[in-house]
Amino acid sequence: MTSKCKKGKGCLEDICGKQYSLDELEISTFEMKEKVEKKPGIELKNPNIAFDKEDILYHLALGNKSHDLTEMFGDVKFVCLGGTPHRMERFAYYILQEIGYKIPPGTALQDISTHSHRYALFKVGPVISVSHGMGIPSINILLHELIKLMFHAGVKDPIFFRLGTCGGLGLEPGTVVITTEALNGTLEPVHTIPILGKKVERPALLDKNLAEEIINLKESSDNFNIISGKTVCTDDFYEGQGRLDGAFCHFSEEDKYKYLNMAKEKGVTNIEMESLALAAITHHVGIKSAVICVTLLDRLKGDQINQTKKTLEEWQDRPMVIAARYIKKYLNEHIEVLAKVENKSKQKKSFPCPDCINIQKYKFDVREEDSESTSSKSSVTYKSSSENSTSSMKSDIGCVPGCSIVVSNVDYLQRVLDESNGFE
Amino acid sequence: MTSKCKKGKGCLEDICGKQYSLDELEISTFEMKEKVEKKPGIELKNPNIAFDKEDILYHLALGNKSHDLTEMFGDVKFVCLGGTPHRMERFAYYILQEIGYKIPPGTALQDISTHSHRYALFKVGPVISVSHGMGIPSINILLHELIKLMFHAGVKDPIFFRLGTCGGLGLEPGTVVITTEALNGTLEPVHTIPILGKKVERPALLDKNLAEEIINLKESSDNFNIISGKTVCTDDFYEGQGRLDGAFCHFSEEDKYKYLNMAKEKGVTNIEMESLALAAITHHVGIKSAVICVTLLDRLKGDQINQTKKTLEEWQDRPMVIAARYIKKYLNEHIEVLAKVENKSKQKKSFPCPDCINIQKYKFDVREEDSESTSSKSSVTYKSSSENSTSSMKSDIGCVPGCSIVVSNVDYLQRVLDESNGFE
Repeated sequence: MTSKCKKGKGCLEDICGKQYSLDELEISTFEMKEKVEKKPGIELKNPNIAFDKEDILYHLALGNKSHDLTEMFGDVKFVCLGGTPHRMERFAYYILQEIGYKIPPGTALQDISTHSHRYALFKVGPVISVSHGMGIPSINILLHELIKLMFHAGVKDPIFFRLGTCGGLGLEPGTVVITTEALNGTLEPVHTIPILGKKVERPALLDKNLAEEIINLKESSDNFNIISGKTVCTDDFYEGQGRLDGAFCHFSEEDKYKYLNMAKEKGVTNIEMESLALAAITHHVGIKSAVICVTLLDRLKGDQINQTKKTLEEWQDRPMVIAARYIKKYLNEHIEVLAKVENKSKQKKSFPCPDCINIQKYKFDVREEDSESTSSKSSVTYKSSSENSTSSMKSDIGCVPGCSIVVSNVDYLQRVLDESNGFE
Repeated sequence: MTSKCKKGKGCLEDICGKQYSLDELEISTFEMKEKVEKKPGIELKNPNIAFDKEDILYHLALGNKSHDLTEMFGDVKFVCLGGTPHRMERFAYYILQEIGYKIPPGTALQDISTHSHRYALFKVGPVISVSHGMGIPSINILLHELIKLMFHAGVKDPIFFRLGTCGGLGLEPGTVVITTEALNGTLEPVHTIPILGKKVERPALLDKNLAEEIINLKESSDNFNIISGKTVCTDDFYEGQGRLDGAFCHFSEEDKYKYLNMAKEKGVTNIEMESLALAAITHHVGIKSAVICVTLLDRLKGDQINQTKKTLEEWQDRPMVIAARYIKKYLNEHIEVLAKVENKSKQKKSFPCPDCINIQKYKFDVREEDSESTSSKSSVTYKSSSENSTSSMKSDIGCVPGCSIVVSNVDYLQRVLDESNGFE
């Protein structure tokens, strides 16, 4: 009847390292939740922002006094940013299906920041999917407010992904590029920002291990390549990226190719408009992040994006596919479950995972009568969240039969079930 | 039966300076239109863009081969840019009502660039209302593509307005500020952009006469002030504008106020994030432009925007009100009419204005039976475009009774009617 809590990253202190019974565990859950609600998450480098002082996240249309940010966002682990509201809504529904997150019949995902009219922000369990607009200033504002959101919500170790589009240098269009280093318009890995009238430079560094892990997610069946390289981040799409087709252009085709080839020789694989800020800001506050972009054209062959809409959409899905693979793998490896027990004679109960990373709302249904048959660890078929969908997915994430929501470390669940002779 | 064409700015050469009958005029209209369709508008400083060569305006989801840009945009005179799709749709409907532009019953304005998922672009007769997102890179891309659009559409002398929000320095929140000079984050009137790896500086100049004309549009009944001053344009909303409430902040409150007061002493009235690019780019291509912003807070008193949504919306309308005044005044002074004659025995006819600026689709209905009573020059009551609206507007723009679409120089119309004994 007891189980040892394994101290994991982000583990909630009050239940870690101690023996507990399921009953104790159950109580801990609510104690824990209470405590999380009053704890700040990620450490801010700003003494002016306090957990209990009003803070309006103006461009997200959220605030720590107007909203219960811990209740809304306390279970977040991944923050995925991309250019357009359209694409990030698409990603939200895609990740919903991929991780098997279930929303009640008759409901739909909603843009939480709709009243800001600036960014579109969707939440699917542990994943935020949010549009960042175009260019460094736009993603800058968003990053400040998302980081403050993580602080107010009690999220300690989020992982940020930018899922974007870019121009490639000598790459087959449709290639996915993982950024190893973000460079500014003069090819330095530095983000310069005037603060109180003086220029401040910050290194634009990304997490190398994370980039490597993502590269390794390539599957043999992929009909596209995944590579890594340096990314130039510019403040302009036309002149700033050496395009000949802006409203004005004062350089020759020869100058352009000389520049692009020089960049290529220095290890630059692609050009876009936001990576520098993502790298510099997340590095500055100690958040792990990665930039996953698909090339829409080869800039060594032209400037105009003239693929069909269908092709472009298919390509734009590729960074999403890779991010979803990472998220699923991560959840499988790191997250244990909060099981919600359906039992006629008792209220629904929940209990936390012993490896507890701060994802309390991640739960799935286990019917008592099914508890004997929860031995299957992998390749379980489960229903997608869309009831109308005829597709069923094979997953290597452990899952109990009949479970409509994914994720688990079934070893743990099995152990708990074995020890407790099932839930009561 | 004849009328002398007065040579005006943008006058179409083939009908200017010659005598013509109404019949001749009618023919000229179509000849003229044919010619306009094949003429480039604004002069581009880019030899690579040709009127007859394919050019995809990727972020607007438009192209000169996929769309008849002259047919769609040939009558544009004003390009109004603002941050959010929501606000610019709101402005589109507002200007529609203000200039009395009529759209068919059962239709609504449509975001022409909806498939780009990037900018929202509405068109109301001679006015484009388009969202630019946040920050210089975002408005940069848009300006390149709008300027190319003006080129392909045959528009020669458009006027660009940015209608925005900002932080004020020592101003009552809700004040409208017309920018005299745009400054970068180090308080220089210069837009710096790395091109092919080298920093290029361009002066960020705005049209002084236009700014003055706008200031003079203040009316005694306005419940807000309109002032002019220098505008600081930054690449960040938090540190870049000296805010203490970002995710990180490495300066003190004292440092902040020292900087803001120093800026104020140099003539800075407000801070926002796009004026520098608008000024530099429009100046570079010779387009008249102005920046009209409303202050949402006094930065000398705080950082957070904490007004009610209703108050913010009311304030955000103020730049629109001022821009609409300018547009109405301009149309009244510069545009003559294309009259569409309703006559059972004949096809509807149209003829161009003699002062013809390139606005051919600007027409209004004149019923033959009303032609005797077209002597009123001012303060004519006419229906707003919304049939359901109970409001009727008094206008000092000349208009014939019963006309449901505004604009005219009734002197000219009267003269034509007098000379022709009415339309037939």
